[in-house]
Amino acid sequence: MNKKEKSPERKPLILVVNDDGINARGIRMLGNIAQEFGRVVMIAPNNGRSGMSHAITFALPLRLRKISHCEGLEIYKTSGTPVDAVKLALSHILKDEKVDLLVSGINHGSNASISVIYSATVAAAIEGCLHGIPSVAFSVADYNNNYDFESARTPVQKVIQAALENGIPPHICLNVNIPNIPAKEVKGIKITRQALNCWQEEIEARQYPADTPYFWMGGSLQGIDNEKDTDYWAIKHNYVSLHPINVDWTDQAMMQELKKWKIKL
Amino acid sequence: MNKKEKSPERKPLILVVNDDGINARGIRMLGNIAQEFGRVVMIAPNNGRSGMSHAITFALPLRLRKISHCEGLEIYKTSGTPVDAVKLALSHILKDEKVDLLVSGINHGSNASISVIYSATVAAAIEGCLHGIPSVAFSVADYNNNYDFESARTPVQKVIQAALENGIPPHICLNVNIPNIPAKEVKGIKITRQALNCWQEEIEARQYPADTPYFWMGGSLQGIDNEKDTDYWAIKHNYVSLHPINVDWTDQAMMQELKKWKIKL
Repeated sequence: MNKKEKSPERKPLILVVNDDGINARGIRMLGNIAQEFGRVVMIAPNNGRSGMSHAITFALPLRLRKISHCEGLEIYKTSGTPVDAVKLALSHILKDEKVDLLVSGINHGSNASISVIYSATVAAAIEGCLHGIPSVAFSVADYNNNYDFESARTPVQKVIQAALENGIPPHICLNVNIPNIPAKEVKGIKITRQALNCWQEEIEARQYPADTPYFWMGGSLQGIDNEKDTDYWAIKHNYVSLHPINVDWTDQAMMQELKKWKIKL
Repeated sequence: MNKKEKSPERKPLILVVNDDGINARGIRMLGNIAQEFGRVVMIAPNNGRSGMSHAITFALPLRLRKISHCEGLEIYKTSGTPVDAVKLALSHILKDEKVDLLVSGINHGSNASISVIYSATVAAAIEGCLHGIPSVAFSVADYNNNYDFESARTPVQKVIQAALENGIPPHICLNVNIPNIPAKEVKGIKITRQALNCWQEEIEARQYPADTPYFWMGGSLQGIDNEKDTDYWAIKHNYVSLHPINVDWTDQAMMQELKKWKIKL
């Protein structure tokens, strides 16, 4: 299982990131698992940055601080977004090194279906992929503050092992969602497509004490796409979902359709 | 050209958003053009929110204020991100109305190639699309502060007209990039795919007066994918680029490939 057995001269270098912040349990578990496979550099935002998607920071200065350096494990935190964290790692901290794998998470909450578009956990994996690094995002469909991420251990280990052994083609990264059930109840792993559901907002209006209005954004996922080949279906039915994402968002069929529009300038 | 001629009983309702902020010239031009086609509701962030991608705000309250209401033109500003602005418009301001078209921009700067992933102008169009609204993002490949957006007028008019006439299928939105050249020098419009280039960071380290370090993120697009069918090539060669984006990011071929990994839990 450990890549050390295959290449004793050099351990794989694994970059570990997240969007729940450096103190989140999920990244500690992910770093712990990643250390079984190689040398780990961990970088994460100072605090939670969920829902930041692929946001980057260029109009403000970024802070970056090394907070721990043990044998085989360096830890950094930054004031930036999760994607900033990946950029700081690849273009500054590790600019002269080859990163063999990027793993993001383990996110506290599902990133299946349309959540891939809002998720900074997934965005961090996409950013790794854009830089040519095999990259995997991990999330658990749990929303309980006391969750210990133990049920995610085996799926995370198996996917990291398979990604290191098989590699991931250019422009593709992986999005793994794990159901929150005891490991022995997991039925297996399903290769899935992204369910095309929609996040339906509920906007709640309130008044500041000074009497001007403000708004809280809430909402729920509206499940219209619950086919058996989707990530949404898989985690609902106790499977781990393994969803391949391509960073080329072009719709090839629509390219042909648009030619019929015959726009003349 | 004006849809009023076709359906005198009801003008199309057009939602206009951007990421350069409510005072940007680009959104004023876009609102002005959209008014030729119907009733316009405009909403934008208080100030520039470039590079925010699909970020949303749920851990902080959002401000929203109507700043103008003339016949056929309502204008709002918000403390939220561009995607928040779309959500506030669709789920609060216009929750009981049918929006016929969402247009985003006109962004000051290209959103071709890999910039689609970082762009909040494009993200706002994706958000409209997720809500089932035909949505188009517009950007001009210009970086001069004095640019007046006049060269973008004809391409924007033509694409809005074509989108209203033809409609856009579900889960697809359009990303239009316009070269910064006089209108008469534009060679035409090209249906394109997204160039798969990479943004290469240059991180500049500085010291705060109090002696701790901080970092500025900069960089440049590395052009390895310059094929004739790309958005990147089109705007470099004086064409308007019309790129269809699908919000399903699944890589179908990789779904087959992943089955060969035979991961057993």
